[in-house]
Amino acid sequence: MNYCSACGGSIARRVPPGDNRERFVCQRCEIVHYINPKVVTGCLPVWDGAVLLCRRAIEPRKGLWTLPAGFLEVGETTVAGAVRETLEEANAKVQPDGLYTIFNLPHISQVYLFFRARLVDDRFAPGDESLDVRLFEEADIPWQRLAFPVVTSTLRHYFSDRSRGDYPVRMEDIIVQRAARQAVNQGPPGHS
Amino acid sequence: MNYCSACGGSIARRVPPGDNRERFVCQRCEIVHYINPKVVTGCLPVWDGAVLLCRRAIEPRKGLWTLPAGFLEVGETTVAGAVRETLEEANAKVQPDGLYTIFNLPHISQVYLFFRARLVDDRFAPGDESLDVRLFEEADIPWQRLAFPVVTSTLRHYFSDRSRGDYPVRMEDIIVQRAARQAVNQGPPGHS
Repeated sequence: MNYCSACGGSIARRVPPGDNRERFVCQRCEIVHYINPKVVTGCLPVWDGAVLLCRRAIEPRKGLWTLPAGFLEVGETTVAGAVRETLEEANAKVQPDGLYTIFNLPHISQVYLFFRARLVDDRFAPGDESLDVRLFEEADIPWQRLAFPVVTSTLRHYFSDRSRGDYPVRMEDIIVQRAARQAVNQGPPGHS
Repeated sequence: MNYCSACGGSIARRVPPGDNRERFVCQRCEIVHYINPKVVTGCLPVWDGAVLLCRRAIEPRKGLWTLPAGFLEVGETTVAGAVRETLEEANAKVQPDGLYTIFNLPHISQVYLFFRARLVDDRFAPGDESLDVRLFEEADIPWQRLAFPVVTSTLRHYFSDRSRGDYPVRMEDIIVQRAARQAVNQGPPGHS
């Protein structure tokens, strides 16, 4: 951040009065520009026991499989965002069944939420951000080709919880140390 | 948003290629500036059966009682943010007991999370944003002087769940219509 988005003045990093951490502050109009974490919201869509996964058409993790998810938009509830992302990425309509997993990803300042959901019919097709969309039975999940740890964890919990018929809401932290991230940094660290 | 925070160029609202909604796009450097909802995270701190509430020293809802909560910061987990806010607003140290309530507030583009928490001792005092901090037994909760619907709802659930000894994670939407908001708009609509 170099310029004030309100007045075009130059930006300095300093601690505003009454605050306790450095912010981006305009040196001309004094406005404080806060940077905050983002919310990512998605679905675990199920049809007749099989889970709908999308093969990513975009980086990061292009070519790998993911649950439909994306950034929550202004004016949207988290469940509405999850339903919208499922429609956009998989052209699939879902009936949400409730919040299921929540992940803190502090290294990239994201909070992920997944909702369990039922496909309303068996029609789906890749959206612009997907190369392919398919239903996977538990035995066929491409565990080694999943895009993000949040997807792996959500699927693992789902199949385990399903065998018991109980789906408690779960919160987990995905902690990635900077050194570890650099070590495995084949590409961009991605969004999970 | 009038100016690009990266290059200082002028901003236009338009739909970027591959997107489906208007964004703030720099007319000089083409960068897209996304605006996303914010996460607010807080605690329901309990000591010997009583709940710790803070009387707000700042607008909105100055003078009313609230649970300690505030915006999640970059690089922070939601539970760490909740613990930090409790320390900042009530000078109280807590041991979190897990996620409890989540609220979607689409009219102000916020997602609220509250964690149940135990005070580690009975020391607390108002922080800069609080006029007063007190422990309230269930019978003494100032229901008519609570600052936000998310606080009222969380407290109601808590006392109800406590009588059963089970605290399921709950998600709710707080839907405020624009017309209704204007009708009750004595002050700013506030952060819940």
